[in-house]
Amino acid sequence: MANPWSAFGEFPIFRSQENQLIPASDRLAIEEPLEIRLGFGATGMRQQRSLSVTMRTPGDDFDLVRGFLFSEGIISRNSDLLQLRYLGAGESEVQPNIVLAELRPGLFIDFDRFTRNFYAASSCGICGKASVELVQQHCPYPLPQKELFWDTAILSRLSETLRENQSLFQETGGVHAAAVYSPSGDLVLVREDVGRHNALDKLIGAALKKDMLPLADGLLLVSGRAGFELVQKALSAGIPFIASVGAPSSLAVELASAYRMTLVGFLRPERFNVYCGRERITF
Amino acid sequence: MANPWSAFGEFPIFRSQENQLIPASDRLAIEEPLEIRLGFGATGMRQQRSLSVTMRTPGDDFDLVRGFLFSEGIISRNSDLLQLRYLGAGESEVQPNIVLAELRPGLFIDFDRFTRNFYAASSCGICGKASVELVQQHCPYPLPQKELFWDTAILSRLSETLRENQSLFQETGGVHAAAVYSPSGDLVLVREDVGRHNALDKLIGAALKKDMLPLADGLLLVSGRAGFELVQKALSAGIPFIASVGAPSSLAVELASAYRMTLVGFLRPERFNVYCGRERITF
Repeated sequence: MANPWSAFGEFPIFRSQENQLIPASDRLAIEEPLEIRLGFGATGMRQQRSLSVTMRTPGDDFDLVRGFLFSEGIISRNSDLLQLRYLGAGESEVQPNIVLAELRPGLFIDFDRFTRNFYAASSCGICGKASVELVQQHCPYPLPQKELFWDTAILSRLSETLRENQSLFQETGGVHAAAVYSPSGDLVLVREDVGRHNALDKLIGAALKKDMLPLADGLLLVSGRAGFELVQKALSAGIPFIASVGAPSSLAVELASAYRMTLVGFLRPERFNVYCGRERITF
Repeated sequence: MANPWSAFGEFPIFRSQENQLIPASDRLAIEEPLEIRLGFGATGMRQQRSLSVTMRTPGDDFDLVRGFLFSEGIISRNSDLLQLRYLGAGESEVQPNIVLAELRPGLFIDFDRFTRNFYAASSCGICGKASVELVQQHCPYPLPQKELFWDTAILSRLSETLRENQSLFQETGGVHAAAVYSPSGDLVLVREDVGRHNALDKLIGAALKKDMLPLADGLLLVSGRAGFELVQKALSAGIPFIASVGAPSSLAVELASAYRMTLVGFLRPERFNVYCGRERITF
């Protein structure tokens, strides 16, 4: 049986070539659903409740769950989480697409937020202003306003560095990445996934597990566009600088600006745009 | 006051240029939340219930809502939907980010599917197999297995044609598109959004409104990658051929293959990959 946690697989395809279709094979990123179930209640009286299902690339699943629970404000420290395991682990049949997160007894969870509408709760209120206020409640760290600078020469190198750090992209050409770099341009952490938000949740979960939060000296580089939710998650991890290879959205800029983050978009070796927080960039 | 339904806006930025940061301005795609509220119950006893919130680019909002309700299986024909309007429309204060969808009295809605976890319900069961079975329930049209072919010369032109058809992308460089083309390569419909799924929901909603479903003679071209949910939505609209500029995921290929769709990925002027349904492609 194939490893149920493989991140990519080989598929038979036809490749167009000089007006023919040639049989070939191609590596694709695996996309599979992951259900997150919470285990809670007093010990001995464990209850389970399904929290969400996300389409993800297998691998770093526990980082994904830890990061998701953190960036959504369900846990705020490692000790809130007693255990992460696949359902059925240790028994005859492991469920590779269901992770059970056992929470500290007594941890308050506002299930109304999630049962009413998870997506609503996770992303926003109903206008940009409400969204920004909502984030404030979930932002456990004030962003550092300390003197910390990134040089344009380092920024210019990062988009190429990211490709080198993306092992799964190199295999498949079809996944997003989230990576954190230091002001000197060194890679701190990188995670990949078919979903952009998952890649960042995996990164945040890994950082939390290693007690690296807040990532106050970090620059977050994302392979795609920068939308509202990515900025929101970066804020939850205390990251002061976000750079995207693609375009930012209006709301991403408004949120970053409100929190005095630096937001750079269209990052290329030869150019980039600074949407806010210009003071963190030097020559 | 600015038009609350603008799809893009001007933002002050700094542009890197020859080792300087030059003040400039940039057009960004607007990203704003849209809440979909359902109005239902017997006439005179209208109740409202919030269904979901999605981050979208304003514009074609009613197409988005109609397409979302259809591709999620909440409505199956135009007559299931009595009216679409912004909350407060006709009164003093219109809410540009809340659309009220009034449903036909007596229409059955399985709210458990949505309250338990909307994302779960919208995307999948827990394994690929379950997902494929779930889609079957929501796929109102059998895919046409009739003799319908797309020529490789036309396929090769489409990725460039799409850029020409993307007016918002040309303004902002930061939105996704979903477009349907005929076998002769003519544009049938195109819609854009910061969210890839929204772009396709807008397209499906516009097609439903014009009584064009199923789009049995259509090729759906998407600007990004092809994931499971995009294939699922294409199936709901009866589209037999999907081509993506980016990579497909494993589950997208498996679902397309199970339904005998044609799935092409990495579509470029000079090459492309055929993942399944090769019989619809000719020279």
